[in-house]
Amino acid sequence: MFKILKTSKKSRARLGKLKLLHGVVQTPFFMPIATKASVKTLDSADIENLGAEIILSNTYHLLLRPGMEVMRKAGGLHKFMNWPRAILTDSGGYQIFSLAKQRKITEEGAIFRSHIDGQKFTLTPELALEIQKNLGSDIAMILDVCAPYPCSKKEAEKAVRLTTDWAARSKKIKNKNQLMFGIVQGSVYKDLRRESARDLMKMNFDGYAVGGLAVGEPRDEMYKTLDYVVPELPDGKPHYLMGVGQPEEIVEAVRRGIDMFDCVLPTRNARHGLIYIFKGKKDNFGRGFYETLHITNEKFKKDFAPLDKNCSCPTCKNYTRAYLRHLFIAGEPLGLRLATIHNVHFYLELMRKIRAGIHAGKF
Amino acid sequence: MFKILKTSKKSRARLGKLKLLHGVVQTPFFMPIATKASVKTLDSADIENLGAEIILSNTYHLLLRPGMEVMRKAGGLHKFMNWPRAILTDSGGYQIFSLAKQRKITEEGAIFRSHIDGQKFTLTPELALEIQKNLGSDIAMILDVCAPYPCSKKEAEKAVRLTTDWAARSKKIKNKNQLMFGIVQGSVYKDLRRESARDLMKMNFDGYAVGGLAVGEPRDEMYKTLDYVVPELPDGKPHYLMGVGQPEEIVEAVRRGIDMFDCVLPTRNARHGLIYIFKGKKDNFGRGFYETLHITNEKFKKDFAPLDKNCSCPTCKNYTRAYLRHLFIAGEPLGLRLATIHNVHFYLELMRKIRAGIHAGKF
Repeated sequence: MFKILKTSKKSRARLGKLKLLHGVVQTPFFMPIATKASVKTLDSADIENLGAEIILSNTYHLLLRPGMEVMRKAGGLHKFMNWPRAILTDSGGYQIFSLAKQRKITEEGAIFRSHIDGQKFTLTPELALEIQKNLGSDIAMILDVCAPYPCSKKEAEKAVRLTTDWAARSKKIKNKNQLMFGIVQGSVYKDLRRESARDLMKMNFDGYAVGGLAVGEPRDEMYKTLDYVVPELPDGKPHYLMGVGQPEEIVEAVRRGIDMFDCVLPTRNARHGLIYIFKGKKDNFGRGFYETLHITNEKFKKDFAPLDKNCSCPTCKNYTRAYLRHLFIAGEPLGLRLATIHNVHFYLELMRKIRAGIHAGKF
Repeated sequence: MFKILKTSKKSRARLGKLKLLHGVVQTPFFMPIATKASVKTLDSADIENLGAEIILSNTYHLLLRPGMEVMRKAGGLHKFMNWPRAILTDSGGYQIFSLAKQRKITEEGAIFRSHIDGQKFTLTPELALEIQKNLGSDIAMILDVCAPYPCSKKEAEKAVRLTTDWAARSKKIKNKNQLMFGIVQGSVYKDLRRESARDLMKMNFDGYAVGGLAVGEPRDEMYKTLDYVVPELPDGKPHYLMGVGQPEEIVEAVRRGIDMFDCVLPTRNARHGLIYIFKGKKDNFGRGFYETLHITNEKFKKDFAPLDKNCSCPTCKNYTRAYLRHLFIAGEPLGLRLATIHNVHFYLELMRKIRAGIHAGKF
């Protein structure tokens, strides 16, 4: 199901194809985030028009709202949001760690209260997969314990042990047509990361994620971790760096052998008026290969150029910086959507450029 | 420029075509409102896809933000918002009356402070037209004095006299390619309304609006006013009822000879989750020809039908009631857009049904 088409001679970067129930996805890829069954401000047609082949949705959020009974009766997430292409669902592990109230981690699973209404939930590894089966995602993630940063070695050790135990329990469940990914934990401790990766490898998951990064550690720490974790992962399986990141981080992670990404940055930043723009030559990913602009800045008031004159997204083809600035200043909701369209396009274009670079032997 | 194609034998309803700089518009028509250069949550492509031939934008709001210098440099409102079809701009009279602070009406014009930042503006009839010339709208409205409801006869009299004086001053300005409409005032006083209409008629405007209705008076009072005002208006000119209204009010006003409408109801109600649905037979406009539903209602939680199974709008073709309810409950901005698309489609469809009814001799 995962086919590597080309491996870079300059780095660990790989060009590949991942065959999923809802279509073939080219790697390396970026998944726009549809937290609550919507990539914020965009409908499914918008996302498809932007060329996304796969999106990510959040088990934790969908479990809370609309709840699993609705998702079951809807016939799964694809039908619910009318999205025909692939979906990866996370397991809820990260959200329990970052959002939920009064969480308690036991051998059995995670007990927590909803951040919305305080309702009590118990999420076991088995239930996390059962939920993802009902969601009908193409890729399910196992429930993991995501350690915070900084984190004592003892705490990181416990997170790894539980994640490994839960992974073993998860492997006993087979959902037809759905890939299942293990998640490597271990914080910034090399021996723990290696142990985690090796134990999970024995279980032969369909793919491997590196979790517990982009949780506040310095960027160099993240790169260093990838430098020793990715070589532990099987070459023939897709490698997924969860929750990353800035464009330059994605570039660096692809160079370290990562195939899959997701991040809220393009969408969240868009809603704050922060716009990504490519700079310089097409296949150059050196320092300053892109810049960001704050569209609410006074200097764009009478700037009737598109956000990026070289961009082919619907926003840049149809609207000006002055118009977008006006929409943001006037509080018009359309501004959020137009900025989101551009930023998601930027990230998808970044991945197209990276793939073209690997293909051309320049990356 | 205005051609009546058919006059009903059952009512004063007329079917016509209004030729404007940015295309021919079929009458009777409804104008979605793009207050601040955006039909809230929709982009120009959305509005065009819904089949709108003309939209309305607000001089008062655009004067405050982004301001006239930006609009001039943008080359007008069409270019600014990338809308290729017709636009009617109001004069700001109604907003000065309803929104502005510390307003003072003199013989010269209106002095008021911005409701946003308190900035002081003086708007004369001449300036209102100068602004609309810069906006480049297809139809400009003269600056009028909109009396509140209820309103003493003396106050209504003063509003009529000033509106007539300002109309005479406005007529001295000719903007090429832009139609200029007079506005009949007079509150609910028959003699004042007649006097206003007759004085304006002498000035030979390109069209006539009935202003100062839908400001709080009982619905019957509005219908009664139309019953005696519309016959005063020249048959060969378009008749515009400003700010109206609910679907049944539009139906009743078309029957009384009105050709043009605008109202915030479809868009504002959409954002509150109130959805319009046709009921019963296609050409029936009797009591209960439509209903409204509150999409946030619990009963739609597992309702996987479209908002209206007979509706051809993009929302109904692609998404379910359960999905829309979820988006509203979860606070997802996409919900506002999908509901707006449906409601604007409903209003445009209502006008198509009305026109088909007049054409078929059934209205």
